[in-house]
Amino acid sequence: MDIQYPDFETLLSLALREDIGTGDITTIATVLPESEGDAEIICKESVIISGVDIINKVFNKIDPDLNIIISCRDGDFLEKGTVIARLSGRHRSILSGERIVLNFLQRLSGIATQTRELVTLIKDIPVRLVDTRKTTPGLRVLEKMAVRCGGAFNHRFGLYDGILIKDNHIRARGNIKEAVAAARVIAPHTLCIEVEVEDLDQLAEAIAADVDIVLLDNFSISGLKKAVLFADKRVLLEASGGINKDNLRAVAETGVDFISMGWLTHSVRAVDISLNILN
Amino acid sequence: MDIQYPDFETLLSLALREDIGTGDITTIATVLPESEGDAEIICKESVIISGVDIINKVFNKIDPDLNIIISCRDGDFLEKGTVIARLSGRHRSILSGERIVLNFLQRLSGIATQTRELVTLIKDIPVRLVDTRKTTPGLRVLEKMAVRCGGAFNHRFGLYDGILIKDNHIRARGNIKEAVAAARVIAPHTLCIEVEVEDLDQLAEAIAADVDIVLLDNFSISGLKKAVLFADKRVLLEASGGINKDNLRAVAETGVDFISMGWLTHSVRAVDISLNILN
Amino acid sequence: MDIQYPDFETLLSLALREDIGTGDITTIATVLPESEGDAEIICKESVIISGVDIINKVFNKIDPDLNIIISCRDGDFLEKGTVIARLSGRHRSILSGERIVLNFLQRLSGIATQTRELVTLIKDIPVRLVDTRKTTPGLRVLEKMAVRCGGAFNHRFGLYDGILIKDNHIRARGNIKEAVAAARVIAPHTLCIEVEVEDLDQLAEAIAADVDIVLLDNFSISGLKKAVLFADKRVLLEASGGINKDNLRAVAETGVDFISMGWLTHSVRAVDISLNILN
Amino acid sequence: MDIQYPDFETLLSLALREDIGTGDITTIATVLPESEGDAEIICKESVIISGVDIINKVFNKIDPDLNIIISCRDGDFLEKGTVIARLSGRHRSILSGERIVLNFLQRLSGIATQTRELVTLIKDIPVRLVDTRKTTPGLRVLEKMAVRCGGAFNHRFGLYDGILIKDNHIRARGNIKEAVAAARVIAPHTLCIEVEVEDLDQLAEAIAADVDIVLLDNFSISGLKKAVLFADKRVLLEASGGINKDNLRAVAETGVDFISMGWLTHSVRAVDISLNILN
Amino acid sequence: MDIQYPDFETLLSLALREDIGTGDITTIATVLPESEGDAEIICKESVIISGVDIINKVFNKIDPDLNIIISCRDGDFLEKGTVIARLSGRHRSILSGERIVLNFLQRLSGIATQTRELVTLIKDIPVRLVDTRKTTPGLRVLEKMAVRCGGAFNHRFGLYDGILIKDNHIRARGNIKEAVAAARVIAPHTLCIEVEVEDLDQLAEAIAADVDIVLLDNFSISGLKKAVLFADKRVLLEASGGINKDNLRAVAETGVDFISMGWLTHSVRAVDISLNILN
Amino acid sequence: MDIQYPDFETLLSLALREDIGTGDITTIATVLPESEGDAEIICKESVIISGVDIINKVFNKIDPDLNIIISCRDGDFLEKGTVIARLSGRHRSILSGERIVLNFLQRLSGIATQTRELVTLIKDIPVRLVDTRKTTPGLRVLEKMAVRCGGAFNHRFGLYDGILIKDNHIRARGNIKEAVAAARVIAPHTLCIEVEVEDLDQLAEAIAADVDIVLLDNFSISGLKKAVLFADKRVLLEASGGINKDNLRAVAETGVDFISMGWLTHSVRAVDISLNILN
Repeated sequence: MDIQYPDFETLLSLALREDIGTGDITTIATVLPESEGDAEIICKESVIISGVDIINKVFNKIDPDLNIIISCRDGDFLEKGTVIARLSGRHRSILSGERIVLNFLQRLSGIATQTRELVTLIKDIPVRLVDTRKTTPGLRVLEKMAVRCGGAFNHRFGLYDGILIKDNHIRARGNIKEAVAAARVIAPHTLCIEVEVEDLDQLAEAIAADVDIVLLDNFSISGLKKAVLFADKRVLLEASGGINKDNLRAVAETGVDFISMGWLTHSVRAVDISLNILN
Repeated sequence: MDIQYPDFETLLSLALREDIGTGDITTIATVLPESEGDAEIICKESVIISGVDIINKVFNKIDPDLNIIISCRDGDFLEKGTVIARLSGRHRSILSGERIVLNFLQRLSGIATQTRELVTLIKDIPVRLVDTRKTTPGLRVLEKMAVRCGGAFNHRFGLYDGILIKDNHIRARGNIKEAVAAARVIAPHTLCIEVEVEDLDQLAEAIAADVDIVLLDNFSISGLKKAVLFADKRVLLEASGGINKDNLRAVAETGVDFISMGWLTHSVRAVDISLNILN
Repeated sequence: MDIQYPDFETLLSLALREDIGTGDITTIATVLPESEGDAEIICKESVIISGVDIINKVFNKIDPDLNIIISCRDGDFLEKGTVIARLSGRHRSILSGERIVLNFLQRLSGIATQTRELVTLIKDIPVRLVDTRKTTPGLRVLEKMAVRCGGAFNHRFGLYDGILIKDNHIRARGNIKEAVAAARVIAPHTLCIEVEVEDLDQLAEAIAADVDIVLLDNFSISGLKKAVLFADKRVLLEASGGINKDNLRAVAETGVDFISMGWLTHSVRAVDISLNILN
Repeated sequence: MDIQYPDFETLLSLALREDIGTGDITTIATVLPESEGDAEIICKESVIISGVDIINKVFNKIDPDLNIIISCRDGDFLEKGTVIARLSGRHRSILSGERIVLNFLQRLSGIATQTRELVTLIKDIPVRLVDTRKTTPGLRVLEKMAVRCGGAFNHRFGLYDGILIKDNHIRARGNIKEAVAAARVIAPHTLCIEVEVEDLDQLAEAIAADVDIVLLDNFSISGLKKAVLFADKRVLLEASGGINKDNLRAVAETGVDFISMGWLTHSVRAVDISLNILN
Repeated sequence: MDIQYPDFETLLSLALREDIGTGDITTIATVLPESEGDAEIICKESVIISGVDIINKVFNKIDPDLNIIISCRDGDFLEKGTVIARLSGRHRSILSGERIVLNFLQRLSGIATQTRELVTLIKDIPVRLVDTRKTTPGLRVLEKMAVRCGGAFNHRFGLYDGILIKDNHIRARGNIKEAVAAARVIAPHTLCIEVEVEDLDQLAEAIAADVDIVLLDNFSISGLKKAVLFADKRVLLEASGGINKDNLRAVAETGVDFISMGWLTHSVRAVDISLNILN
Repeated sequence: MDIQYPDFETLLSLALREDIGTGDITTIATVLPESEGDAEIICKESVIISGVDIINKVFNKIDPDLNIIISCRDGDFLEKGTVIARLSGRHRSILSGERIVLNFLQRLSGIATQTRELVTLIKDIPVRLVDTRKTTPGLRVLEKMAVRCGGAFNHRFGLYDGILIKDNHIRARGNIKEAVAAARVIAPHTLCIEVEVEDLDQLAEAIAADVDIVLLDNFSISGLKKAVLFADKRVLLEASGGINKDNLRAVAETGVDFISMGWLTHSVRAVDISLNILN
C-alpha cells in the first residue's frame, strides 16, 4: 500500500537520525563514493509482506538517484527466497539505508504474517478480527496497515476517531448512562459510540443507554454466548481481552461481531528479510 | 534510568500526535474538566521494569500539574501486582496519557524481562550478551536502555559510533584488507574496528589486517570453538546469527567474548501493565 | 476550554516566528528590560468569548514569569468593556506577545459570536447546526472549538475520523453502491458512513446501499421536505450548501437532523479585543 | 506569485496533518489506487485570484506524479466559471488534497477580492492603502501577498522589520522623545521610525522627536485634515483605526500618505472556488 | 541580554543533538546519577562577555533542577579569572551541557571582545561601526547580539528587514533608477532603501534616484572623502569592503555615517572560557 | 564530499529562515520573476575548498530548476580566481541563496585552508593532527568534514561515539581507576577508552587502569617527551592544550600519536569567496 500520511516523514527523520546520525562512518571509510552496483532484498522465510513502499521512501530520502524496482505488493504471500526488491546505484547509499528499511519490513511483515495465521483460523465465521491501540509508539499507522495486509480489520486509530468509553471513563464519570449521554452531545455525528462492559448487568445498562457497540471485556466463552443472546442484535458486540490463538475460534463461534486482539501488534516476531549486495 | 537524549522529545510528539491527534474525544465528552482523582499503574505479571521515567515525561507534557510518584527503579524485578507509579490530579489528563505510557512500558519491560531470562542462563560464563541495531525505528535508544535493564550490554548504537565492516561492505570494497586499512585512516581513533567474517579463512584474513574485533557470522558451535582456538586472544570475538534460547549456553561455552542477538529487541512479547483509576 | 492537542505547539511556534522572528525590535529598543507593570485584555464589543487558554499558552512561551489571571471561561457572553484577563510582569514580554494573542482571540471569538447568533435563530427546533472542514489551514481544531463555544456542533474533524462519500468520490468510483460497500469493509467499525447526494434518486440509492447518514447537497426547501418524507427516519439527514442567516430557519423547519454551514468558519468577522498597558 | 519563504513548508505540514492525519479513510476505502482521471479547479463567482502556487505546492507534496496546469496568475480578475487549474493523475491524490487547496485559495482570493474593491474606491488619490499585523496566526506572509494581489500595499511584516512605537510602548517608556531616541540607537539604520499618536499634541511631540512616520490613531476626518496641515510634509502620515468602506474615500481625501486597515485581513469573506473530478 | 527569539529553540535542539545525540556515554558510564556538586564557569582571559543567558537556556533544557547563578551581564568587561556563573546540582547534567555552553560563550564573547577593540579605536568620531550578514549559518541573531555587546551596531538582520540593492541586483535589473523605483513600490514604507555603488558616477545615479542610504563598496580613503563631499548630506553613506583594524580610523575620519565590517562576525578568535567542577 | 547526514536539513531550514525569513524583499522588489541569467562562484584568494555540495543543497531547496555545475571537489587547492561553480536560471533564486551559500563556503574553506597549513608543517612526522568538540553549535559535522578536507583527522564527533574521561569526570567520580572500570562495563565494546591526565602520576594511574588512549593535557614539550618514554607504547598518547602554529612541530617531534587542536575549528578566518551575476 502507498504510505501517504503526513507524519511518516517525521518518523523517517527520527529513524534516520538514530541510525545514521552524524554519518555512516563504516561506509564512508570503506566504500568509495563512485562505487556502484546492484542489490536485492530477499525474504528468508515465507511471509505475508507489508511495508514495501517504505523501501522507496527511505532510499529516496538518502539518494534520489538510486534505481528501485519493487516486485511484490503489500499483502502478497511470498515463499522463502522471493526477491522483494532490486536496487541499483551507489553502494554507499544502499549500505546506509539497509538496516532502517529492514527494521521496518521485518516488523511490519511479522505483523501481517501472524495476523494472517489467525485470520485463517476463523475465515468461515462471520466475525471481524480487529486490532487495538496497543501499537508501538510512533508506528501506529504502519502497524495498522500491516494488520490489514494480514487480512484483519482496523479498530479506531486513536482517541480522535472513535468514542470508546472504558472502565476508567465510567469510574471518572460515575455511570454509563451519563457518560453516553454526554458523548452523544459532544461527538461528531459521524462517530459511533462504543462502551466497555464487564458483565451482563453493565451490558444491559449500555443497551439501555442506546450505545452503538459494546466491548465485552474479558468475558468467558459462556459469558460471551450469554451476551450475544441477551443483546439480540440491538447493539454490535466486540469481544476483547485474554484472546489468543488457542481460544480464538471458540470466541468467534460465540456470535460476537468483532474480536479485538492487542497481541496482533504488541507482541510481534520479526520475520527474516535481508539485503544482499550482488556486485 | 533517566531518559536524557534530545530526540526523545521528537518521538514523544509523534506518539502524542498519533494517539491524541486533534483531541481525546471520548474523554472530553464524558469526563468533566474539574473532575480529579487518583490512579495506579500496576504490573499484572512479574517483570523486570524498564522505562519508568517515561511516565513523568508523558504526563508532564500533557499536564504539568499532575502529581506523580514512581515507586520503583528501572531494572527492578517486580512481582505481579506491584504498583509502579501513583498519579493524582485531573482525570482528563490521566486518561489521555494512559495508553501512550502503557505502550512504552509494556514494550520496554518486555525487552528487559526476556533479556534477563537469557542473561540468567549464562551468568556463570565470562561472556557478554549484547544487542544489535535490529530495533524498532525511532525507539533505538529506549530499547537499548531496556537491554541494559535486563542485564545485557549494548553493541554500537548506530552507524556513527562503531566501525563494523560487514559482508556487504567487503563485497562493495573488494577485500577485507583494503577495507580495514581505509577504516583506520578515516575513523576517529576512539573507535575500534570490527569485521564480520563467514569462515576461518576470513578470520585469518581479518586478524592479518589487524582488526580489533571479529564478528563470527552464523558459525556452528564447532566452528566457534575452532575460531576461538585459532584467534588465540589476538582479537576479541563476537558470535552472531541464529542464536536462540536453546543454543545460547552452548555458544557461550565456546569461549567467545560477545554474543549478539537481534531477537532481544526485534521479537518482543509485551508484558501486561495497566492503569486503574482508583477514584 | 483547555487547549490540549499536540500540534497546537507547532502552530504557536509558527505564529511566533512570523510575528517576532529575529526579535521585537521596537520593544527591545524602547522598553527597558527591568520595566514591569500591569495590563488588561478587554473586549471592546459584546462577544461570546473563545480561546482564552491561548493567553496562557502564548505568554508562557514568551515569559514563564508573567502573572496571568483569566477572568472568564470559553463560551461566556461578555458585555462590551469586560476584562478578559489581567497580566502583570515585564513590559517587554507583554508587548511582544500582545498581537499574537489578540489575533487568535479576535478570530475565535468572532466565530463563536456569529455562531451563537445563528444557533439562537433555531434554538426551538430539534436540529443540530454543525461546522465543516472549510476552516483556516492550521487552525482547524481551534476553529471547531470556537463553533462549540458558540453553541453549535462539530462535524468530523478531518479525513481520518469520518466517512463522507462525496460527488467526486462517487464519480471516481462509479456508483454509490460500490463505494459504500467498499467503505464498510475498510472503515473502522466506530465510524458511520455518510454519503452526499444531489437529488431524490440518489437519496434512494444511498438508502438502498444502507448508509447511516445522507448529506443533501444544495437542496431547495421543498426538496429537503421531500427528502425528509422519503427517508422516513431510515437514515439521518444533513442539509448542506447555500445556507445562510436568511434561510436557516426555513431549512431547520424541514425536519432534517443536521445543518452544516461552511460560513461559520470560512467567513468570519473578527471581534474587537484589545490589550492595554495600565502602568 | 511564487511562494518562496521557508516557513511555508511548516504551515503546509500542519495543514496536511490536521486534514489528512492518519489517512484519508474515505478515499482509501472507496477509490482504487490505480484509478486515474482529470479534474478542474473553478471559481464559482468573479474573483481576484491569489495563491495559485499553493496548488502546486500541496499536490506536489501529496503526489509528485500529478500533472498540474495553472491557467491564471495571482492578481488576475477571473469571471465566474473560469478554470483556475487542471489536474490529471491518480484520483486518490486529487481527492486527498482538494479541501486543503480550496481552503487556502478561498481565503486568499477573498482577501484579494475585497482589497481590490477598496483600492478601486480611491484609485485617483495619491495615497497607499496598507495592511496591518491583524492576520491569521501562521498565514501572515500569504495574507500579505493576497493584499498585494488586490492592489494594496504591505505595512511591516512583523516586529522585526519595522519600528512602530505604539501607545503601549510609550506608556511603558514614559514619553515619546525618550522612546524615539532609544530606537534610533538600537534599530538597524535601514529601518524608519514610526510613532502612533492620539492627538495633535502628540503629533507635535513626535515631529519634535524627529520620527520618520506618524500613525494617527482613530482620528476623525477633521482631525486628520488638521494633522496633515500641521505636519506640513515634515513626516509621512498614516491614518489608522475605524476605517471602513464607507469612510475610506473621505479619509483618503484628507491628504494622508497611508491608510492602514486591519479589516483587509481579519474579516474576510471566503470566495467560492471548487474542484470537480471530470472523469 | 535575554535571548527571546523563537528559533533559538531550534538551534539549541540541533546543538544538543549533534553533541549529546543518543547519550553522553562517558558521563553515564562514569558518574553516578545521584552524584551532586558545584561548578563554576570562569573566563581564562579578559573578555567582553556575551551570551550569558544561554547558560540558563542550555542547562534548563538538560535539567530544570540545576541551580544557576549568573554573576555578570552581557557587555560587561571581565578580567581574566572572573567567575561568570555558578552551578549546583547533578554532576551528570553539568557535564553533559558543559561543552555546548562553552562553545556558544567562547564564540559570542570572542565577537564582543574583538568588536570592542575596534569600537575603541574610533570612539571619538561620529560614525557607527555596523555588522553584516556574513554570520555563521544558524547563529545570526546571537552573533548580531554579540556585536551590540561589543559596542557596535546592527545592519539589517536578513533579506526581510532592509532593502539593499547590490551590484548583482543592478546587473539583473539593468540600472539603479529602475531598481530603486521598483523597490519604492513594493517595500513596506517602514524600510529605507540603500544602494551599493562602486564609483562616484553610480553615487550620483543613486542620489538622483532618491535613495536613503548609499553603500560605498571598496572605495579608497580618498574615494570615500570625495563621496562625502559629493553627497553633501543628501544621503547617508556607508563604507564597506576591505576595512580592517589598520585602516578603520582613516575610514572613520572620512566623514561617512556607517562603516560595515564582515570581519566582526566571520573571522572570530574564540576566547578562553572554561567550566570547573568544584566538588 | 557528499553531505549525507539527516540533520543537515534542519540546519539548512534554520539558515534559510534567519536569512530569507518572510521573504527576500529587495530581490522581489527589484528583479522580475522571469529574469534569468548566469552566475559564477569564485574564490578571491587561494584556498583549500570545502563544502561544495552545499551549493547544490541550498539552491535546490530554493529552486530545483536552477542549473548548477560544480567544477571542483572538496579538498582541492584552488588558485585565486578559480571558478568553483556556475549557475544558470532565475536571477531571483540565485540572489536569494547567494549569502547563505557563501557564508557556509567561506567558513568551511577557511577551516580547510588553515588546517592544511598546519598539516604541512608536520607532514614528515608520523603523528595525526585531530580536531576537537570546540566547534560552532549546529555545524559540527560540516566543520569536522572541513578538517578532513584540510588533511587532518577527526577525533570523536560527540559525547556518544567516544569515551573521554576528563578532569571533571574524575573529580565527580573520585578517581581514574573507578571511572575507567565503570566505563568498561557500560560502553559498547566498539569504543576505546581515553582518559585525560595532567601529570605523569596520573598517566601511570591511567595505564594501570588499562585505558586505550591517554590525553596529555597542557603538558610542556619536555613533559610530553617524558610521557612518551614512560608510556612506552602501552597506550596511545594524545597531546592537547596550548598548541599553536609555533609549537606544533616541537609537539609532533615528541613522539605522541595524536595532537588535538580546538583552534582548527573555534578560531577560523573566513576565506574570500564571492558570487557574480554574469548576465
